Amino acid sequence: MAQQNRFTGGPDYAPLSPESLPAWLATAGGSAEVLGGGVDDWAVREVGDGNLNLVFIVEGPAGSLVVKQALPYVRLVGEGWPLPLDRAWFEWLALSTQAELVPDRLPRLHHFEAEQAAVVMERLQPHVIMRKGLVDGVVYPDFADHVATFMARTLFFTSDLAMLAGEKKRLQADFCHNTELCKITEDLVFTDPYRIAELNRWTTPQLDDVAARFREDAALKVAVQELKWAFLHQAEALIHGDLHTGSIMVTTTDTRVIDPEFAFVGPIGFDVGAVLANLFLAYFSQAGHATHGDDRVAYETWVLETAGAVWTGFEARFLELWRSQGRGDAFSADLFADPAAAAALEAFRTTTMRRLFGDSLGFAGAKMVRRILGLAHVEDLERIADPDRRALCERRALAMGRQLMLGRRGLSSMAEVLDLARMQRAETRP
Amino acid sequence: MAQQNRFTGGPDYAPLSPESLPAWLATAGGSAEVLGGGVDDWAVREVGDGNLNLVFIVEGPAGSLVVKQALPYVRLVGEGWPLPLDRAWFEWLALSTQAELVPDRLPRLHHFEAEQAAVVMERLQPHVIMRKGLVDGVVYPDFADHVATFMARTLFFTSDLAMLAGEKKRLQADFCHNTELCKITEDLVFTDPYRIAELNRWTTPQLDDVAARFREDAALKVAVQELKWAFLHQAEALIHGDLHTGSIMVTTTDTRVIDPEFAFVGPIGFDVGAVLANLFLAYFSQAGHATHGDDRVAYETWVLETAGAVWTGFEARFLELWRSQGRGDAFSADLFADPAAAAALEAFRTTTMRRLFGDSLGFAGAKMVRRILGLAHVEDLERIADPDRRALCERRALAMGRQLMLGRRGLSSMAEVLDLARMQRAETRP
Repeated sequence: MAQQNRFTGGPDYAPLSPESLPAWLATAGGSAEVLGGGVDDWAVREVGDGNLNLVFIVEGPAGSLVVKQALPYVRLVGEGWPLPLDRAWFEWLALSTQAELVPDRLPRLHHFEAEQAAVVMERLQPHVIMRKGLVDGVVYPDFADHVATFMARTLFFTSDLAMLAGEKKRLQADFCHNTELCKITEDLVFTDPYRIAELNRWTTPQLDDVAARFREDAALKVAVQELKWAFLHQAEALIHGDLHTGSIMVTTTDTRVIDPEFAFVGPIGFDVGAVLANLFLAYFSQAGHATHGDDRVAYETWVLETAGAVWTGFEARFLELWRSQGRGDAFSADLFADPAAAAALEAFRTTTMRRLFGDSLGFAGAKMVRRILGLAHVEDLERIADPDRRALCERRALAMGRQLMLGRRGLSSMAEVLDLARMQRAETRP
Repeated sequence: MAQQNRFTGGPDYAPLSPESLPAWLATAGGSAEVLGGGVDDWAVREVGDGNLNLVFIVEGPAGSLVVKQALPYVRLVGEGWPLPLDRAWFEWLALSTQAELVPDRLPRLHHFEAEQAAVVMERLQPHVIMRKGLVDGVVYPDFADHVATFMARTLFFTSDLAMLAGEKKRLQADFCHNTELCKITEDLVFTDPYRIAELNRWTTPQLDDVAARFREDAALKVAVQELKWAFLHQAEALIHGDLHTGSIMVTTTDTRVIDPEFAFVGPIGFDVGAVLANLFLAYFSQAGHATHGDDRVAYETWVLETAGAVWTGFEARFLELWRSQGRGDAFSADLFADPAAAAALEAFRTTTMRRLFGDSLGFAGAKMVRRILGLAHVEDLERIADPDRRALCERRALAMGRQLMLGRRGLSSMAEVLDLARMQRAETRP
């Protein structure tokens, strides 16, 4: 896989359209067989609502497919912000790697074409983007279990705990070239919300005071940039890189993770933190969605408990894999065969999980703040029409995010973190 | 530079010899001009005493040169241990990167030829391999200053503190392919000395007990493998990767660093620890070189003080560069312009130097142990003919190495570390 050319987007590259797509798709791997019928029988609509790409749903007599195509610029901003097409290749490489580890948690992959920077994959049905479900108050009882498994397996098996160094370095070398997408994170998550930046936006004037305070918060700026430094150099595992609830499609019984175009070999806590951050944002937004008939109190409890279960599930599964399948070059198994060494290694595993817990909380905090003070916001909060009401939810989330970044090494359990969330939730200062 | 083909060793590759070398050298860059005269006027001798390569000194009427050529196997072990020729390319890439940062601390570079996996460079004269000078009891008054500057500049300017992320990731991608040389370190430094391994050797039977104890030391095995994990994933800066006193050529007024073929983007403390380890080994070996006319007491004091000065010099220079030239993507300068943020960042710098100190001590400990219980030993100790006398020196060094690995987070200053060395030096248990 890694041998394939990563220089995506050939001379015949052109953004696909509902008109041009069927003819292209007829030659794309086994797509025609999945759809059934002929080119004229396929109905195409563009449904991309993300920030970067074109997404088409194609329906035929026998089945349907999704086609995702990279655009040479950031869709959210426009042609003034160019972005390389090779992100489609990195997405495909990440999907292919993950597919070997958690096939049930991804869409089935059908085809990749470098020339058009396009991926053809399973249309997930009746799945919805999880963020929408969280805004609508839908309970997903298996989500914590599914996403914990996804993270534990993809992160463990691409770390030095499971891989031989030479294999891991080859993977790392490939993803070292995914720099422009990493730079989006470096700027938008770790830097811009803490300085005057043209692209920043927030609920104004309600949050002007807190936005200004964050820009002057010396300890917080050190903390967020320390996290950025870890993002830049802590090459622990192949991470998804953008694992928010908009990159997860769900039903009440199924969970699939999509869109790993930000993937690279980075810190494990960044993925775990992304899931936690987006659950915390969902939690703090519920008060804004409450109506007379639906106070959302039970739902926010479920969201918070789910955040807790995501961490505890991840921790348990990661530890279980490390104990049973730690065949990588880190902690060479033959040094730890005797009982005393095995016990010492087990103690080190506990220390490592606490360190990963702190990393995850810090990254979660950074990802909460950026969704409120930075460029890209989330529907959980944007859907709250009344700006005063929205600002109150956002203020609570910002305070939580700040405490996670500053307190990440002191918080000793998920129970303590959930208490912190409940305390912030009770804050009524406008 | 990074664009050049790293696939070194073409179809016409053949080990050079004193007979074949002049004809090749006549076509190698400006070599003929440096040497003067013609092919028949050049005297060639092979002088390689390292573990991996051929090294020739070529003398002509006008000047002399060194040619270093990679062999397709480990010279120390033989053809049964193959090793890729592309290490010559990684060496050249590292030398070229370092030459921009510390031109005075390297040999001048003349030519690289991929086909023959060979580098042509300045012949350093009257320089000697520093390790030989340390065995002979020669004082190098400027060494600490020179090597501290070499490390501070090469490590700072290739870290995220100085580089933009995209540039650093390109460098990192190139060196991610230098996996086979990294594997030598992973195995021989961090793993083999702590298990039964065919290539291990030590002064036997004198050290049989301590070798056995190290293989059963649960805490030590966790510590050394934790360091290995950091070596595998902590991509802080372009490190030399093999910075012992056999990779340094000196006079009493000059210092040059050679042989960076183990270079990759790894932990800063690995280079600093290598220098410290080899000075500590030199320190503990002096008692073995003492004679009636030369007790080496003053010299061992100088060696130990030099180790102290290497750390304090490195720390001061690295901090100075960070304060004055921190233009990288980590700790974006515009977030720390106000006095409160600047003060918070300065406090974080102190914390970071303490962390790097602990990393360096840990790596130093690992590198001391491997030179006594592993495959590759050092002349400092090997030159002590009497095995009982040698074993006493080695036992002290092993105890120090172990304490550095286990105590690396608790040791708070270099003064404390030097006291520890003096205490071990006084140990007389045979």
